[in-house]
Amino acid sequence: MDFTIRPSKPEDSKDIARMIFDLAEYEKMGDQVKIGDEELKRDGFCENPYYKCLIAEVPEEHKTKDGHVKVGYALFFYTYSTWKGRCVYLEDLYVMPELRGKGIGKALMCSVAKVGKEQQCARLQLSVLDWNTPSMDFYLAKGAQDLTKSEGWHFLRFDGAALDKLAEEAPNK
Amino acid sequence: MDFTIRPSKPEDSKDIARMIFDLAEYEKMGDQVKIGDEELKRDGFCENPYYKCLIAEVPEEHKTKDGHVKVGYALFFYTYSTWKGRCVYLEDLYVMPELRGKGIGKALMCSVAKVGKEQQCARLQLSVLDWNTPSMDFYLAKGAQDLTKSEGWHFLRFDGAALDKLAEEAPNK
Repeated sequence: MDFTIRPSKPEDSKDIARMIFDLAEYEKMGDQVKIGDEELKRDGFCENPYYKCLIAEVPEEHKTKDGHVKVGYALFFYTYSTWKGRCVYLEDLYVMPELRGKGIGKALMCSVAKVGKEQQCARLQLSVLDWNTPSMDFYLAKGAQDLTKSEGWHFLRFDGAALDKLAEEAPNK
Repeated sequence: MDFTIRPSKPEDSKDIARMIFDLAEYEKMGDQVKIGDEELKRDGFCENPYYKCLIAEVPEEHKTKDGHVKVGYALFFYTYSTWKGRCVYLEDLYVMPELRGKGIGKALMCSVAKVGKEQQCARLQLSVLDWNTPSMDFYLAKGAQDLTKSEGWHFLRFDGAALDKLAEEAPNK
């Protein structure tokens, strides 16, 4: 099936926000989404963008039953390893359910890898929930290493009051 | 004890590289470090920097036995949550052994949290090895959540031939 993968533009922000919400709803976590198209536009197209995004687009004749031609996205950003240097991190990979099974997800992921290689990134990294067996199997089959399993890496987060408290305890100078 | 925390400058790159290597050596992984001060200078001070770094510096009278006044660093970068927006990720936190136990590590971490809050980040995130009990306990005591334990997040990586293959499979348009 014919589709194109291209970098997102500010005017794609509404469609990205729609798909972010769809993905969260699918995970029954729609109420957790605190950002919308205005924040996406602000943070993706400022002087030092906080993220990059690729959009999967189908021609008009293949639009979804709701009339959408932007049917998938891959949102990523650059990170840094103090051993290997530049890396790329895939935060979200999503294809609308009615367009799945046509290679769009794989094309998005491979395109992020290609962009990363062009920026001299040594690694493409991502996180997967351990109960999400289809995704886990897909990535492992493509050659990913599960570093939580093999090396014991755990992912930690400060937010809310814990983060406020840390920031307040910073020295003033 | 008197010390200051300040953003790194290009001329700190040699000291950061020295401490990155010290940390890797301590973990018996010194041979894994593929970057040095030139890469750090290039990637931290370009138009869209790949990382940010804070340096802990002591006055001359407290210099180490090898004559160093730059005795610790926190290297971090910005990431992005499609639910919460801007986040900050702490990649490395290091204090030279002879200067430990004086609050320098905590001051570095809290200063990263403060910088993150100033940039409207909703989260401070990091990864810890499950056998590194002192670090794990320190972060948990400060209010961090272990998302690998509570939600099952696993950390995946593509590098080397697996990453090359992904990039090669990207569509050409």
